[in-house]
Order: sequence, then structure tokens, then C-alpha cells
Amino acid sequence: MSHVYLDHNATTQLDSSVLQKMLPWMQAQSGNPTSRHQFGRNARDAVELARNQVAEACGAHPSQVIFTSSGTESNNFAIKGIAPMIENGQVLTSAIEHPCVTNPAKSLQWQGHPHKTISVDTDGLVDEAALVELLKTPTSLVSVMYANNETGVIQNIAEITTLAKAHGAMMHTDAVQMLGKQPLDFAATGVHAMTVSSHKAHGPQGAAALILDKRVDITPLLHGGGQERNLRSGTENVAAIIGFGAACALVNARIANQTAHIKALRDQFEAGLASLKTEHKLTVFSQSVKRLPNTSYFAVERIEGETLIMALDRQGYAVASGSACSSDSTEPSHVLLAMGVDPDIARGAVRVSFGAENTSEQVTGLLATLKKEMLRLKQLNAIAA
Amino acid sequence: MSHVYLDHNATTQLDSSVLQKMLPWMQAQSGNPTSRHQFGRNARDAVELARNQVAEACGAHPSQVIFTSSGTESNNFAIKGIAPMIENGQVLTSAIEHPCVTNPAKSLQWQGHPHKTISVDTDGLVDEAALVELLKTPTSLVSVMYANNETGVIQNIAEITTLAKAHGAMMHTDAVQMLGKQPLDFAATGVHAMTVSSHKAHGPQGAAALILDKRVDITPLLHGGGQERNLRSGTENVAAIIGFGAACALVNARIANQTAHIKALRDQFEAGLASLKTEHKLTVFSQSVKRLPNTSYFAVERIEGETLIMALDRQGYAVASGSACSSDSTEPSHVLLAMGVDPDIARGAVRVSFGAENTSEQVTGLLATLKKEMLRLKQLNAIAA
Repeated sequence: MSHVYLDHNATTQLDSSVLQKMLPWMQAQSGNPTSRHQFGRNARDAVELARNQVAEACGAHPSQVIFTSSGTESNNFAIKGIAPMIENGQVLTSAIEHPCVTNPAKSLQWQGHPHKTISVDTDGLVDEAALVELLKTPTSLVSVMYANNETGVIQNIAEITTLAKAHGAMMHTDAVQMLGKQPLDFAATGVHAMTVSSHKAHGPQGAAALILDKRVDITPLLHGGGQERNLRSGTENVAAIIGFGAACALVNARIANQTAHIKALRDQFEAGLASLKTEHKLTVFSQSVKRLPNTSYFAVERIEGETLIMALDRQGYAVASGSACSSDSTEPSHVLLAMGVDPDIARGAVRVSFGAENTSEQVTGLLATLKKEMLRLKQLNAIAA
Repeated sequence: MSHVYLDHNATTQLDSSVLQKMLPWMQAQSGNPTSRHQFGRNARDAVELARNQVAEACGAHPSQVIFTSSGTESNNFAIKGIAPMIENGQVLTSAIEHPCVTNPAKSLQWQGHPHKTISVDTDGLVDEAALVELLKTPTSLVSVMYANNETGVIQNIAEITTLAKAHGAMMHTDAVQMLGKQPLDFAATGVHAMTVSSHKAHGPQGAAALILDKRVDITPLLHGGGQERNLRSGTENVAAIIGFGAACALVNARIANQTAHIKALRDQFEAGLASLKTEHKLTVFSQSVKRLPNTSYFAVERIEGETLIMALDRQGYAVASGSACSSDSTEPSHVLLAMGVDPDIARGAVRVSFGAENTSEQVTGLLATLKKEMLRLKQLNAIAA
């Protein structure tokens, strides 16, 4: 049985043409980009080409690209790096951030930077009135994710940024779910710092970036040999950075050519879900607001999301329950709770995130399997009750 | 002209059998190890196999291995993670540490942890009497590198650890230059924390580890989704970790089979250097103490190291001047200055670090080229003077 991958918000498959660009650097001696000899200079040139490619995909200038090892590192770097450079001032993060934004923000509480949470509405959009109220207290940094990994909801980042800036705060956005799925324009958003990651956009794991307005003071998270303009030390992960660049060179064509296909799969899936509503009480989250075209997030009343995803996995469909990064936990999704979803419903949450290689036949198969498994699980529940 | 790589302390070539182990994870859909579905579980299993392989190569228990993205990250994590968990207490680092140890230590000075430097003798060995004197002041953490990247000098880590522990301090060692070159035994050294890195040992870039005694309190450097027992968040770099594990599975055989060959090349080279002493005032550093078998570090009076390495590079030989990670700087090596070397001599320092793929013919060629270039540069100097 071939296994169908439907978890593209967790990680994506490395594009084969990207791998081809990386292989020469893995098959032959490659230098350390800081070395002055030919091996080192070649590696340096390749890293700088990748910097241009990442900048181009993000609507940024190459000098604004700081390479890191992961989205988590970029988010830690932005929050722990920018906030402490500003005397006092609270740190505001939205209630639906990934833990790699919330937890760094919380870690600053003992350093004179109280952390407060910006509420969201029932669709998962940041409550701008609540943000304005919070901004009446001196604020060093606001961090709001561009697109949510669970619901796929896309925030009005430019608007939120305008509010933050009007109150003298710095603005960061975690855009890892945007790159490769929606066009990105760092300059147009007006944010001071933006996180992007390679492996969410068919690049390799091990490379990511913080796009940073150069006027922003930031303290390094990694101290050492002084790489990346002394802002992020450590030998550059050359092959991964080259792959990140190559993946970025493909994102705009990918978005132009594949979005309609991916969105059609999602719509087919959600139409199928709607038809199941006659037999099951079923909620699809954030359907009425702007979302990533590939993401569908739903819950079936009285069926645990964990149970459903394991059942689907046994039938050959790989989907997620809430965020992969917190799925070791059986707590209901903090994103859904923040949206005011009943915890019992939130516990049922299942996320399907499509990619270009998925097909309409796979969606048909998934829907049929889902229907069968939901019925079976409901009958088991009835027996247990 | 084929270019001869003689800079293995900066980075090494990815072993082709290691690449073969990584490729399946780069050619097909691979999961996020936190995901519960089959793709995720397969990735989790592969990461855990690699953890066993790294532990085995380091004389540690798998539960002591915390994966990170680089040696720099592991060193930052150890120093910024351990010292702040201890109330007050200075941080001691040796005078010959890599900047990714020294700079994190300095960054703690504003947090109640004064940084002091342990001096070394003229061979580059830590001055244990000086250490004991420093330890009379309450000390939270001592960090001394196992083998130096420039001189190759190997410290008496077990002895130094005994001293540190006797005074109630935690002990960390940066062992990135040891892995793959000399046997490692975390348990036998007695250190609380040890840094190792993949790309210095024919594994891929993007993977490293902090080996940590589980009784040690440490605060994370990267907060987020709670990976690595909540100590190092971020999606695991699956392919790189698998490669790191595969490279570790080879290190002990590599050391057993290749050390004699590598040491013979180094000895041939240094015998050749000795014969040049009739015409040039030439110093080979740390020749009389225990060194890595692959490293030769020397300086020719009145010839700039930078100039010499560029001349050798043009002739097809890639060697280093001082540490690659600080070679953007034209300052003389801090390692040599700490050893009491005259700054004018230190500015001439050139490092040759051999690997198993190097040959005796290449050493002969390097020596002939070196002789020619030294003569040419000396004549140029004479004209300029």
C-alpha cells in the first residue's frame, strides 16, 4: 500500500531539481566559506548566490538575509535578539503563535520584558482593537505569524505592522507557512523582521533565514566566529543553503503554476466534508476568511483527532492532528482554544495540508476512507458509552 | 590543475557511504519526526538510530546526546545554558578557545558571571597551576577545548576536569577537532558536557551534538516545540542527523585504519620543513607535545601567512592561515599570542591539516611549491625593503 502524504505544513519533499543543485557540494570536497583558498571562495560564492535567491523570493535585499539553521532558530533570534536591545517594553505575541515564538517571548519575562498575548477572533484573525489597547503600554516588540500552521489563516500583517509602528514597537512575523504557498514581499509588509524556512518550501532541512531591516539593533543568539555580518556565527551549512536558494528560485513559478491545482484539491475535500455533515456533527475551521490554499482544518464531534489520524494512517493517509510540533501533547490545540472553540471539539481537530503532487483521486480515496473510519469510530464510541 | 585539499580542520569531505545513507531521505517524501503518521515515525526511528551511533562514537549513552545544528550552537548552548543555572560564579575559558566558546562566555558577563581566561604554556597546554589559582574564586563553569583547531594540541581534559570538579565547577569541553581523529570517551573524561560536530568527521554540515550529563541543569538556547527532551526545539534536520550517525559509525574504524597514514604524511611534511630551516627562519608550533596526528602549524619569519596561503592556493594547494573561522581578520592568531609567540612570527602562521585521501606525492609537491614560493616572497620582500 502506497502511503499518501497530506501533511505539507509539517514538512515538504525536497524538490529533485533542488537536490541536483546540492549534490555536487556533497559528492566532492567542499570548503568552509570562511576559508580563503579556492574551495572556501567557491563555497562563499555559492552561499551569496543563494542569499540573492532567498532575497528575491521574499521581496527583500540580499543584505537583509541572515541565514540560520531553522525557523525555530530564526524566531528565537528575532525575539531574544530584538526585544532586549530596547529598554523595557512588553513583548506582544498573538494567541495563535507557534511555541517557537511564544516560548522565547516568555523567556524574556525575567529580563524586564513582560509578555502579553493578543487575542484573536473566532476565525483566528488578530483582534486589532485588542492590539491597539495593549499598545497603550510601552511595547518593544510585536510578533504575529503571517499564516497559521494549523488553520492556514493569513493575517493582515501590513495593517498590524502599521499599528505596531505607530506605537513605536518593532514588528516581527513568522512567515514559514507563507514561503512557497503565497507571494511574499518583505518591503511591502513593512515588518522589521521576518522568518522563512527552507523545508516548508521544498528545500532541504537545515537552512532558514531571518530577513531583517538593517536599521534594527539585534543581539546575536549564536556568538562565535562572526559569520553573517557578526550576527549569526557558525560554519555555514553550505549544501543546505544552496538548496534553500534553489528552492526559493522556484517558489514564484510554483505558486503561479500549482496554486489552482492545490486549491481545487482542498475545495474538493471540503465539499466532501460538507456532504458528511448529514451523518456527523463536523466543523471546518476558518472557512470564511483568507487562508492558505492548501490547508483544511476540521473536527468531528466525539471523535478524537489523534484516534482519527492513527486510523487514517493505517489506511495509508498521512494527516496531522493540530501542529506536528506539539503533537506529543494530547492537549487540545491552543490555536483553536484561542478562537473560542469548545475544548471537546478542539480535541477532534485534524489538519489536511495538500501539496502539488497530490491528486484528485487521492482526495476521493481520503474522503471514502474518512467516511468509513468515522462511522467505525462512532460505532465503537457507542459501544463504549 | 587539480586542487589539493589540506584544510581538514576547517571542514572535511562528506563520506560517500554516508551520503548514500542520507539520499533516501532526500529523494523521497520524508516526515517531520514529531508527526504521528508513518512518515513521521520512520523519521523518528532514523533519528534515534543516529543518536545511538553518535553516543557509541563518543563513549556516551544515547540519552546523553542532544542534537543541535552546529558546533557553534552546541558551545553556545553549553555555556549560556549551564552557567546561568548556577547562582553567581565566574566562567573560565582557556586562552586558546575558539571564539564560539569565548564570545558566549563574554556575553554572560552582564548577567553576573564574570569571565576569566586560563593561560596556556608555550606549547599551548593549559596552565593547571593558573587554573587552580583561578578556581579559588567561586566558579560556575570551566570550558577547555579538547584539541585545538590551529595547533592540534590535545589537552589533559580528565585532569583539568578533576580540578574543576574538586572546586565545585561544571566542566565543558569543545571536542569538535577530536571526533574522527582520536578516540573519544565522554564517560572517562568526566566532563559534564562535550561538543561534537558532524562535518569535521566526514559527516554532513547541519548536524552536531551536545553530549550532556543528565544530572546537569541546563536552560535551552532554542525554545519552541519541545524537541530533544525540551532542551533543543526545532524540527530535527533528519537527513543531516542520519548522516552524522552514519559518519559516527565509521569513526573508530577510520581512526584505527587511517591514523598511521595521516601521521606519516604530517611527519614527512615536518621533516621537509626542517630541511628548509637552513634557508629560512621557520618555527613549527607545539611539536613536542601531544597533538592531533593530522595537524602541522608553522610560521616563516618575515613572510605573512596570508600571503603564503594565497600563493600556495594559486599553485593548487589549499591550506589555512590560523583558524578559518576568524580568517576574515588579519590580526595574528590569538592562540599563538596566548602561547607567547611574537606577534610578528604569529602573523606568518600557516596550518596544514591532512586527511586520509591525501598522498605522499601531494606532500612532496606541497614541499617543493612551498620552497619555491618562500624564496620568491623573500626576494619580493628584499626588493620592497
